[in-house]
Parts: sequence; structure tokens; C-alpha cells
Amino acid sequence: MPLQNDMKIISTDDHVVEHPNVWLDRLPAALKERGPQIIEDELGHHVWRYDGEIYPQIGLNAVAGKDPKEYGMEPVRYDDMIPGCYDAGERVKDMDIDGVEAALCFPSFPGFSGGVFQRAKDKDLALECVRAWNDFQVDEWCAAAPSRLIPLGLLPTWDPVACAREVERLATLGTKAISFPDGPVPLGLPSFHHPTHWEPLWDAVEAADIPLALHFGSGSFVPGFSFLDKSKPDPHAPFAVAIAVFATNSMWSTADLLLSGVLQRHPKLRFVLSEGGIGWIPYLLERIDYTWERHRWYQDIDKVARPSELFKKHFWGCFIDDFHGVDNRYQIGIENILIEVDYPHSDSNWPNSRKRIAENLVNVPDDEARMIVETNARALFKFPA
Amino acid sequence: MPLQNDMKIISTDDHVVEHPNVWLDRLPAALKERGPQIIEDELGHHVWRYDGEIYPQIGLNAVAGKDPKEYGMEPVRYDDMIPGCYDAGERVKDMDIDGVEAALCFPSFPGFSGGVFQRAKDKDLALECVRAWNDFQVDEWCAAAPSRLIPLGLLPTWDPVACAREVERLATLGTKAISFPDGPVPLGLPSFHHPTHWEPLWDAVEAADIPLALHFGSGSFVPGFSFLDKSKPDPHAPFAVAIAVFATNSMWSTADLLLSGVLQRHPKLRFVLSEGGIGWIPYLLERIDYTWERHRWYQDIDKVARPSELFKKHFWGCFIDDFHGVDNRYQIGIENILIEVDYPHSDSNWPNSRKRIAENLVNVPDDEARMIVETNARALFKFPA
Repeated sequence: MPLQNDMKIISTDDHVVEHPNVWLDRLPAALKERGPQIIEDELGHHVWRYDGEIYPQIGLNAVAGKDPKEYGMEPVRYDDMIPGCYDAGERVKDMDIDGVEAALCFPSFPGFSGGVFQRAKDKDLALECVRAWNDFQVDEWCAAAPSRLIPLGLLPTWDPVACAREVERLATLGTKAISFPDGPVPLGLPSFHHPTHWEPLWDAVEAADIPLALHFGSGSFVPGFSFLDKSKPDPHAPFAVAIAVFATNSMWSTADLLLSGVLQRHPKLRFVLSEGGIGWIPYLLERIDYTWERHRWYQDIDKVARPSELFKKHFWGCFIDDFHGVDNRYQIGIENILIEVDYPHSDSNWPNSRKRIAENLVNVPDDEARMIVETNARALFKFPA
Repeated sequence: MPLQNDMKIISTDDHVVEHPNVWLDRLPAALKERGPQIIEDELGHHVWRYDGEIYPQIGLNAVAGKDPKEYGMEPVRYDDMIPGCYDAGERVKDMDIDGVEAALCFPSFPGFSGGVFQRAKDKDLALECVRAWNDFQVDEWCAAAPSRLIPLGLLPTWDPVACAREVERLATLGTKAISFPDGPVPLGLPSFHHPTHWEPLWDAVEAADIPLALHFGSGSFVPGFSFLDKSKPDPHAPFAVAIAVFATNSMWSTADLLLSGVLQRHPKLRFVLSEGGIGWIPYLLERIDYTWERHRWYQDIDKVARPSELFKKHFWGCFIDDFHGVDNRYQIGIENILIEVDYPHSDSNWPNSRKRIAENLVNVPDDEARMIVETNARALFKFPA
């Protein structure tokens, strides 16, 4: 029996759709008017207005519960969405239906790691918006059900010292995980290989002992040859190509960090590969060791720490549906695997997540199943405290 | 016993370094002077001069037999290389030492699929250069040992009709495989999703019944966040990151073709994922089926053909060293796996390839090992005819 009744599912990747007042309720009076607010456009769509710009998405793929044959249209108004997208009380009811105990919820309008604020011109306003979102997670979203919703934080990614200050503040708020771009380079930021740029952040994260979640796509990079040039969209390439290969982002993030030296300088850092899947991990670990064995001598790479061993210590893989990964779980590390639901996005199996997870774990012994669905996440996120 | 003495290794990915007279010997008199020739620069390095430009590389990573601790310096003169790089007679001797029966050899100076000619301004000259390289493969390189060297062809990738004509010519020459960019987009060409652009090529390839080899990197795309912007190299990122994740190119190529409709329109096309490894294939097939099940309804994707089934019919994976892939070979398809050696590049195990292949296949039954190292390649390439 793979999933016992007493095993509680901790989903490590879900999504909250911000309600219209998240920033209106929190920004200082002088900034409120330029902060994110929902307006109705001439088509009757709800859109975000932020510092004079219009951002059409409200729900980023909030399709939970729809038949796949009805996918394709993003919700264009709040009343197109099921209320669990934006209402914490309703969310918990939807988690009950789904057999899910607790959930870590990433942002929608700001981008998974705050890319909208990273790209904003007015960085003072953007910093306040990041802080307001972080307050919203703790004082409203998770406060509605503290044993069910796990607080996540965002960072002012454009300024590592400000990042460090916000990490310290998040620690005092009780935030359990921090979202960070899976690749900072496409956002115009230095890579994980930069020897000094990110040090204030890494130091603060180590001191706070909070894991960083690298959600695929959070660095704004869409994988696939047809999506490389954003100024010249390929009219013939279906977006399903990107959906099918989004894990290559997580592969790149992992290889970057394993060969960067960051993990040697900061032995307490922990990274979660949100929505990355796990079935590619055995291949990548074998391949990166092979690369390291041959190429470390003449490149600026640690000569001692084997990448696959660093992985076991510093990385957690997350999956929704990944039979190949589960079959090869010993090569990944039973301690390094987390489950996720992805409510309300199209990859989610809501309202059948628990059933589907049980199918994925059908050949897994009880003690391992419990680790994968519950105790690994509780230990990693220290949840509840 | 995994590798019996009578099992002959057919390496489906090795590399030839062109000797200085490949084009001088073959180009029409009027083009000879502007065609590729080797000159010695002020540093005493051998470099290619082609149509007024200088191309520093001669051997692209031709380090076979060196200790990894000595890697790092490309050979800068022919006399820095072991002669098997450019001399067919010596190559066969090196294959004998390595326990390898036959080899398919990709170009060096032109790029794995002729990217140098794709980027050249004078396309009439470039076409003649492609044809000269193809003649060199058949009438000189492979003619030196017809049962040991498998002729590969290049195409004038900038012109699908010229591609088709060259495919027809290659068929009459007896060429067994054709190298094509793993992603045409980074070369400035339409993607595999274009509904009409590549049709003349696909038609000709089907008629000639020759497989296309998509060598990773042959479309000039280097994977990894730090390598996206060629105009702004990341001074801190070790190139080992790209080496570790080069398979993500093959993942993108595979997803592109499986979701493009090309395979439905051209049921006889066959693609070889040269140097892509195989350990990622079970993950990708599961993931792309999951994507297809959910997203095909509203996207321009075949509603009937399951991507993993198309893969089994149209794709061959190649590996040098891939224990995870071998362990999961039934999910890939025993018929769909080929071995490779990668002589004289740094991923090669020369002169111990046969020994290392035997280690990879230690748990594989004889009949399957024979398919992987020999008979799959003989059938795919019709070699010998």
C-alpha cells in the first residue's frame, strides 16, 4: 500500500492568484496609486495596472478542474476562476477535496520569483511591492490557515544587499522558503558563477537557514529553439514544446550551481527545483560527474567535491507525475524528493492529486512514500515550526 | 558476458579533422584561392583561411589519448595532433587499437553540420565547399577503408531545394547518413515547425532513405544560461556547464520534431541524436506524453499520434558512457540505441573504448548488446550496403 491514510501530502509547488487589493491594502499612501491594481479594460478583462503599464495576465494558467479539452483560454476575469485561486479559505477547501494537507504557493502577477518587479523602472516602488507581497503571504494568505499554507517570500533581485535585508526580515516573519530566479542571466543579472555579486544574499540565506526555491521559468527563460528570440516569435511552434522541456531550465540551474563553487563557500545553502520533475536527475548526475572527471583539471572548478555528492547535500527535486523518477529514486536520493500539486495550473491533477500521487508511488515502500509526500518537506521547510 | 569477441563496434559519432588539401584538391580552379586553405599565422599556428576570413580552429578539441590533466589546449598545428585525426590509414589503426570496427565521422572545420558554410556570405562558393567535403568523405576518407569508415554528408542548409539536390547526389555517391543542424533557428533558419520551408528536404531524404544525424551543438547553440548571449560572454562560467548539459539540445530537437507534424507528413524520416546520450530519454518521453495528453486539444498538434510512439519509430539515441540509460533501455527501445566513440574528442575513451563499452553493457544480455553496438547501426545506415 503506497499511500496510507495517515500520510499527509505537503505540496511544495502551488500558486496563489493575488486578489485586487494585495498592494492597495499595504503600500504606503504615496505609492498606492502607482502600485499594482486591477482595472477592467475595454474588453471587460481584468488586467493589472502597475506604474503606468498594463499587464494582461491575472491568473497565469489558472485552469484547475477544467477538462483539458477546455484548456487554452487564460481566465480573463476573477469570476472566470474558481475562488480557491485567490481566496485562502476556499483554497483550503479545495485542498481538502484534493487530499492535500499543506501547500507552498508561488506568486502569479509578480512572476514566480518577482520578475515583474525586477524589470520595473522604479526600484523604490518595486522594493515596496516585494515587501507588500511578502507581508500578504504571511499576514493574510497563510494566516488564514497556518497549519495548511506555508509562507513563501520574494526578493528584490536587483540588489543583493537589499536581498539580504529582506531575507533577514522574512526570517523574523516566519517565512519558510524564498523564491529565486532559476537563472538570473535572462533577467539581466550576473550568473550564479559570479564570485562576489550574490555573496550578501548567500550569507543571509545561510544565516536565516531558509531554502531557496528555483521554480522553472522564474528567470523568464522559455526553453526551446523556437522561443530563444523573444522579438521574433516563431508562429508555427506550439507552446507545448516549451512545456515538455521546461525541465531543461532546472538542469541548467543545477549544473550552474554544482560547478559554481557557491556550494563550497556556503555549505548550508539548500535549493528546491520547483516543478522541475525528477526523472532527469539520475542522467544529469552521471553526466556531470563524467564531465567533472575529465574537465576539472584545466577549468576553474572545484577539484575535490564530486558534483553528484554536492547535489545530495544541497538539492531537492519536486514532481507532480514522474514514474521514471520514482522508479529511479535511489539514484536521486529518497531524502531529496518532494511532491507537488501545481494547483491551479494546467499540469495539476486537482481534484485527483492524492489519487494520482498514490498511483505514482504504487511500488514504493511505506517509509519512503511518507518521506516523499510529507516528512522531507516538513524537515526542509521546518513546517510547522 | 556483455561483449563477445564477434560483436563488432560500429561507432556512430567520431570526427575527422580535414587535412589542408581537402578543398584545394577539389574546388574548381576559379574558386580554389577563396576556398578553405591552411595557413600559418604569426604565432606559428595552423589556421583556416576561407573567403578572406581566418578561422583559428583546426582540430576542435582533438585530444584523444591525452590524460585529462593535459586537456585544455586545442591543438594549434597538425603536428600537435595524432595522425589518426586527419589520415584515414592511421585512423583505422587507431580504431584497431580501440577495438572499433567502423566509424561515422563528422566534420571539424565546417562545424558538425556545415555551420561555417551556412554563415558564409558567398553562397555559390559555400555550395561548392559543401560538395567538395562530401566528395572528400566518399572518394578519399572512406575509400581508404570502405568496410571501416561510413560516409556522412553535409547539406547547403540555406536552401532547401539545393539541399534536396545534394541529397539526391549523396544517394548516388553511396553516403550513409546526413548531418543536419540540431536546431536550425540559432543559425537564422526556420524551425522544424515551419509547414513548408523544409518540405523539399524531407521529401528528398525520404526518397533517398538516408537517416539524418542531429549532432548536439551542430546548430551552433551552446546550452546554459551563461552562454545565451554570445556578445556578452560570462567570464566566470566554466565551459564544463555546457558540456554537462549538452543533452538539453537533443531534448529540444526531439520535442520540436515530435510536436511538429513533420513525422506524420514524412513517415520514413529517421533522426539520430548524435552525442546526445540516452539517459534522459525515458524522462522526456513520459513528460512529452503527459504534455500531449493535456495540451494537444487547443494547440496545433496532432491529436492522434502519441509522441513516445513516434519516437520509437523515428529516433535513435547515441551514447558513449551512460549507465542510467543502459539500465533503462527498455523504456528507450533496444532497437533505438546506438554506441559511439567520439574519437578524437575529449569525451572519448580511446584507446579504451571497447573496454569501457563492455563495462556499460555488463548487465545486458548478448542479443541486446549486439544490437546496441553493431546491428542497429548496420540496419539504420545500411552498412555495408
